[in-house]
Amino acid sequence: MNIYSFLQAVRDKRPLVHHITNWVTIFDCAQVVKSFGASPVMAHAPEEADAMTSLASALVLNIGTLTTEVVDTMKLSAAAANRKGIPIVLDVCGAGATAFRDRKCAELLDVAKIDVIKGNSSEVARIAGLAVATQGVDAGEVSADLREVAVALSNKRKCTVVITGAEDIVAGQGKIYQVKNGHPMMANLVGTGCMATSVIGTFAGATPDQIPEAAAAGLACYEIAAEQAVKKSDGPSLFKQQLFDCIFRLDEKQIRAMQQVTAAS
Amino acid sequence: MNIYSFLQAVRDKRPLVHHITNWVTIFDCAQVVKSFGASPVMAHAPEEADAMTSLASALVLNIGTLTTEVVDTMKLSAAAANRKGIPIVLDVCGAGATAFRDRKCAELLDVAKIDVIKGNSSEVARIAGLAVATQGVDAGEVSADLREVAVALSNKRKCTVVITGAEDIVAGQGKIYQVKNGHPMMANLVGTGCMATSVIGTFAGATPDQIPEAAAAGLACYEIAAEQAVKKSDGPSLFKQQLFDCIFRLDEKQIRAMQQVTAAS
Amino acid sequence: MNIYSFLQAVRDKRPLVHHITNWVTIFDCAQVVKSFGASPVMAHAPEEADAMTSLASALVLNIGTLTTEVVDTMKLSAAAANRKGIPIVLDVCGAGATAFRDRKCAELLDVAKIDVIKGNSSEVARIAGLAVATQGVDAGEVSADLREVAVALSNKRKCTVVITGAEDIVAGQGKIYQVKNGHPMMANLVGTGCMATSVIGTFAGATPDQIPEAAAAGLACYEIAAEQAVKKSDGPSLFKQQLFDCIFRLDEKQIRAMQQVTAAS
Repeated sequence: MNIYSFLQAVRDKRPLVHHITNWVTIFDCAQVVKSFGASPVMAHAPEEADAMTSLASALVLNIGTLTTEVVDTMKLSAAAANRKGIPIVLDVCGAGATAFRDRKCAELLDVAKIDVIKGNSSEVARIAGLAVATQGVDAGEVSADLREVAVALSNKRKCTVVITGAEDIVAGQGKIYQVKNGHPMMANLVGTGCMATSVIGTFAGATPDQIPEAAAAGLACYEIAAEQAVKKSDGPSLFKQQLFDCIFRLDEKQIRAMQQVTAAS
Repeated sequence: MNIYSFLQAVRDKRPLVHHITNWVTIFDCAQVVKSFGASPVMAHAPEEADAMTSLASALVLNIGTLTTEVVDTMKLSAAAANRKGIPIVLDVCGAGATAFRDRKCAELLDVAKIDVIKGNSSEVARIAGLAVATQGVDAGEVSADLREVAVALSNKRKCTVVITGAEDIVAGQGKIYQVKNGHPMMANLVGTGCMATSVIGTFAGATPDQIPEAAAAGLACYEIAAEQAVKKSDGPSLFKQQLFDCIFRLDEKQIRAMQQVTAAS
Repeated sequence: MNIYSFLQAVRDKRPLVHHITNWVTIFDCAQVVKSFGASPVMAHAPEEADAMTSLASALVLNIGTLTTEVVDTMKLSAAAANRKGIPIVLDVCGAGATAFRDRKCAELLDVAKIDVIKGNSSEVARIAGLAVATQGVDAGEVSADLREVAVALSNKRKCTVVITGAEDIVAGQGKIYQVKNGHPMMANLVGTGCMATSVIGTFAGATPDQIPEAAAAGLACYEIAAEQAVKKSDGPSLFKQQLFDCIFRLDEKQIRAMQQVTAAS
């Protein structure tokens, strides 16, 4: 896979990526999109859900600080995205922590065609129906084979499934990709998972006809920048600043030298 | 115009700048006020709108992530600000993107005396009645002469109008100022527009009898710091940290050497 | 007091610290918890208040941008925390600025057993019943002896009381501690008070049987890191990044050399 060509598509098309996301990492979700050269927008009023989504090339939904009202707006935006035919990425943040989160994820998946389900291991395993627990928004133990979990959920929901972790799994359209880039420092920073979701939305918005590949390429670019950022920092906060700036400066040579994306059957 | 004297007024009076703003850049709006030596406060409960506004020297309204409920609180705070006679700055963020935003801006402008309307070119042009479109919160194409747009809206609404861009235009009380400070890197950072609005509110709060001049001086100080910050960073995120810190250290000599504010007829 | 042993307990137990907090500093509250090696979660939907709180080791409530609805969720979470027996820390942010804030603090203190009341001098003095005023969220003048205010409120509410300032006072269970670490630069950064509250929640969550000591130890660790961070920065924003990273790297030797915690009778 030519990872760089997906980054080029983002930079050339500058997709508008509409978000309905959480209040903790909302700035970081916007800035990661902007650092990649695309255009973020965040809005959650039901009255403009349709109009704002209609301007966008992708829709990112993240339930990190969900309320019933905000999920209701997500449903309106998801319907608009489906009508327009733009990809929807759903971060099932905190699924497996409370029954409320599980139920709201199920509602979103039932009322709209979601193109990408994304979460950590226990979040996605819970959405796939396993009896696992998430510790707030941090992954809990999952004994099942994650690749099998991703494929089963992809088949059940007819969508791409992304499980992030030390090794990311992307399963969709009968294909599986593994992304081995990244660094353990990412676990010390709040929001690395949310930002990954916004990156997937950005790349899917630029290349909507190749969603599994766009997701894998976006994760690889984001995590290659993270590997570079670790070298320029000695703690999570300066790491974050360098992460944005390494994304901003990411070039073809770096991607070709560092990318660790493999396809499995 | 003695730009530094306006900064001195901010640092001497330390105005309390009350905000009802968006959830994406709310920290940055607060920190930019604090970096200038003033005191920010953010609150959006209708029950305390009157009391909190009564403590303040300026009110900043920003519709970036508006809802009907939050705009209702803005109306209460605006009424309190008008009663007390403190300046109100309205960032018409995303006007021209959705009809809902246009309508809510019109409501705010109709129910309260707004002292400064601020936005990018397509946002302000839409408020002025032109048929232009905003791409989410990023400026769209405007073919009209921006100076004429600003003057016409200033005359119509009896207020100061600020259009930010590569060159900022400030029109009010029959005067026009241009601010040519700043740097293209600002466009790579989420929130530079929102922060500019908070800066205008801070300077207007310190010098409420010279609002157009305070707005121009505030923008010049902010953008001079941005020019310095670019030299100390190589991407948008470290630029942001340096921006706050260059504002914090801004001195008279830098302002005199770097300011590019001109008055037009 | 062996300050380092409290930090060790945090790093060993990695408590899940649930927050219902304000929208301005919500990221910073999460990141400070994570930088100490613990696990933050933020959620404010009433439907999951009970379930999310039941997963946690401590509950942090911060009324910085309160609404009636969010305070109602705080009450549900506080009830769940009391049932489970985990500590609750309440930041009375902005008490003394509006009657609404005073009333909501009183309601929270009346319906739940709060373990730690924390604020700046005028906020805590107002909760203690004095006729003082807070300037938005910045401390106003208090002529009373702060130590006496803290002890009186601690006795009245049967809880630990923390007043932050150039010198922090911790009064609880018949004991008083003073923490003299910290740096004036903290006053130039938005959120240092909110982060202090999250730190107290984190340490109380790890050592719930010694809440006054945990509060004093947490403040000392946080402020020792601040003293280190000041040396690596020249303005509030780079100070903040260094603060997170100095917390992340904090070690026993630094704590032993720098801690300024004293017990009074």
